[in-house]
Amino acid sequence: MKKQILFLILGCITNYTFAQSKVTSPVPFNLKVNEQRILSRINELGTIGRDEKGRGYRVAYTQGDIEGRAWFMDVMKKAGLDVSIDAGGNIIGKRKGKNPSLKPIAFGSHIDMVPDGGNYDGPLGSISALEVIEVLNENKMTTNHPLEVLIFQNEEGGLVGSRAMTGNLPKEILSQKSTSGLTFGEGIKAIGGNPEQLETAARKKGDLAAFLEIHIEQSKVLETRKIDVAVVEGIVGISDWDITVTGMANHAGSTPMNDRQDALIAASKLVLTVNEVVNSYEGAQVGSVGKMAVLPGAPNVVPGKVTMSLQMRDLSHEKVMKMFADIEKRATQIAKETRTEIVFEHLRSSMPTITNQEIQDKMMQTAKSLGLSYIKMQSGAGHDTQEMGRLGPVGLLFIPSKDGISHNPKEYSSSSQMAKGANVILHTVLMLDGMMGKP
Amino acid sequence: MKKQILFLILGCITNYTFAQSKVTSPVPFNLKVNEQRILSRINELGTIGRDEKGRGYRVAYTQGDIEGRAWFMDVMKKAGLDVSIDAGGNIIGKRKGKNPSLKPIAFGSHIDMVPDGGNYDGPLGSISALEVIEVLNENKMTTNHPLEVLIFQNEEGGLVGSRAMTGNLPKEILSQKSTSGLTFGEGIKAIGGNPEQLETAARKKGDLAAFLEIHIEQSKVLETRKIDVAVVEGIVGISDWDITVTGMANHAGSTPMNDRQDALIAASKLVLTVNEVVNSYEGAQVGSVGKMAVLPGAPNVVPGKVTMSLQMRDLSHEKVMKMFADIEKRATQIAKETRTEIVFEHLRSSMPTITNQEIQDKMMQTAKSLGLSYIKMQSGAGHDTQEMGRLGPVGLLFIPSKDGISHNPKEYSSSSQMAKGANVILHTVLMLDGMMGKP
Repeated sequence: MKKQILFLILGCITNYTFAQSKVTSPVPFNLKVNEQRILSRINELGTIGRDEKGRGYRVAYTQGDIEGRAWFMDVMKKAGLDVSIDAGGNIIGKRKGKNPSLKPIAFGSHIDMVPDGGNYDGPLGSISALEVIEVLNENKMTTNHPLEVLIFQNEEGGLVGSRAMTGNLPKEILSQKSTSGLTFGEGIKAIGGNPEQLETAARKKGDLAAFLEIHIEQSKVLETRKIDVAVVEGIVGISDWDITVTGMANHAGSTPMNDRQDALIAASKLVLTVNEVVNSYEGAQVGSVGKMAVLPGAPNVVPGKVTMSLQMRDLSHEKVMKMFADIEKRATQIAKETRTEIVFEHLRSSMPTITNQEIQDKMMQTAKSLGLSYIKMQSGAGHDTQEMGRLGPVGLLFIPSKDGISHNPKEYSSSSQMAKGANVILHTVLMLDGMMGKP
Repeated sequence: MKKQILFLILGCITNYTFAQSKVTSPVPFNLKVNEQRILSRINELGTIGRDEKGRGYRVAYTQGDIEGRAWFMDVMKKAGLDVSIDAGGNIIGKRKGKNPSLKPIAFGSHIDMVPDGGNYDGPLGSISALEVIEVLNENKMTTNHPLEVLIFQNEEGGLVGSRAMTGNLPKEILSQKSTSGLTFGEGIKAIGGNPEQLETAARKKGDLAAFLEIHIEQSKVLETRKIDVAVVEGIVGISDWDITVTGMANHAGSTPMNDRQDALIAASKLVLTVNEVVNSYEGAQVGSVGKMAVLPGAPNVVPGKVTMSLQMRDLSHEKVMKMFADIEKRATQIAKETRTEIVFEHLRSSMPTITNQEIQDKMMQTAKSLGLSYIKMQSGAGHDTQEMGRLGPVGLLFIPSKDGISHNPKEYSSSSQMAKGANVILHTVLMLDGMMGKP
């Protein structure tokens, strides 16, 4: 307990360099990933699936995705991994450990992208995972645990591959259309999976010792604060509602101002209320109205109906529901004032995933030992790690992304930033494996 | 002047019944329209152009419109009018006066409707105009002025017929599609007009002594206040703007609340500002945001762009521009607060039409003499009268419409309400003609 307190104090001194002499580990912290190799692989994968205008369409199940996966599996095999594709279409690259009775330590990410996406969201975690293997190979090191590089299929389409691996992908989805134009079933078949036997892709709780992922931040907190890495405490739960505001459509010329039941006036008040309520709480929670339709939607008609979305995210589901209760209460008042009706329909809530405390600690310890600055952060975006949290302990690390841009060709992290993150993953794996002594 | 003051005081006692004995007019105020005939004609015209489900499609240039016009012209002829169709497709029914050197007094409205419209918007004014002729016929009365019943084509499509009559319909419109599916040129031809010689439909300023119209109110001021008729002071000018709010689209999960440039937050503040500014002025002005699009429009993306309409109407164009300046000023502040850009694009402004003061006075005098309650009102909706105001003195009278509904099969005014209005038109025509002495 005392040790932990000291540790947290050290953790605050973000640029503290751990004295090598005090490390009792057999693996020195000067073991490093190859920054140039990471960069050249990021760039090489980045060329696959781009059209003549440089637009990227490595969307899951498309020709670009299939080519990207083929390239990746080839590199995995060259790195000596035992490569297979599970029934869900995920790529699994295995490396034996000294002790076959230990559960594998897994790490990885995805290589599919949104239409015209960038080169870092997914590839960073995938190529960094491969880099861990390369460094072990070059140093002729064998871990105690078996290792697995996991490349999940169709992360962008809704964590499809990782949900298959956790047994959390409903069969019904197989007949639905994916962004590629194929159904998910057809797509999984196209990339070498077996949708008929989807259930065989599901792994049991406790099958993995740990799962680690490194990802670009997708916002600019690290960049703005000039911090090297963020240890992610958890991935937020997401709750969605549809809101319908009903007033009375009327002639915008002949209806006096005080006779109106303008649904857009009510909706505007509600948009501002959502913002105020979410900002009134302590913490990193977010709340957004991203979608709105105004009906009938003519300049000369007082709006009779507005439909809009409400989405809130936080590491605490209770907080989200408390904020919603506040919003709902204030909406009653708005409806009264504007003589409209406001109806909320709850669509879904995903629960937050809290990352493993021991892995968080080891990531911070590693970052410190590597002389890197770090902060704790929550992830507002979804990641495969959140699904993998159903199977066992997980850890997630962020590195800075320029201007916080993602899902865009302008996505960018420097090779130095990537290498720093990959080094944290490398040493965290070694620490979890027990190859490294405790400082 | 003293007389006028007295008059205004009497005007306030809305149910005052004018003593018949004091009227020096040769035409007594007990000369009345036939309420039952108005009702049965409204109902008969109402059956034309309705489908088996009772939905009305007497949209200009459709089969329903053509049948409605044929029926109307037949009734006009039976009433002894000399019926013709001008090059613009308007129906003109002439009745000779005692003095052919006097300019005609005209009155009328339109009989086309919006898709699935009602039985009163347009037909009331058209059938009431015909009723004036019927009453004169039955009483073997000939006015000093010639009279004209004017039935304008395609009022609902943008005052098309009346604009042709004032020479204000641009030729370019002839090749554009109308609601019927035909171009305006094809449509005008289909109803017996001559689009190639459109300019011959244009009448010169001063060609008519006056034009009068009676119309349903299209809002519920008269109904709510239980007033018989409204003397319209003018038809508002309409100014339209497009507004574009530009923020920054961003991930609604990973973008912290204080890092956002949410275009919908700015737009919502602006919608409320429009409402506040318009309500802060004295008078009957209106201002509306009727149309809004939120982009990219997904629940998980912070809105990066909002486009919206702004429309303001008033009898004073100066007031509209003053309100706009207020809105624009406050928008600058909103843009600063929300770190967005707000751009206004002025699309168009139509100027207000002020109705003739003498006609207003005669309508009020008539209403009073008939024992009817009345108020003054501005028209927030457009009417053929506003176009006719380009040619000479105009007057417009409103009667109550149930629940203020128009452009809808639920449109309704009772036969008693219609007859009251038609009686005001009848006696105002006689007064303007000089057949009636001043009280």
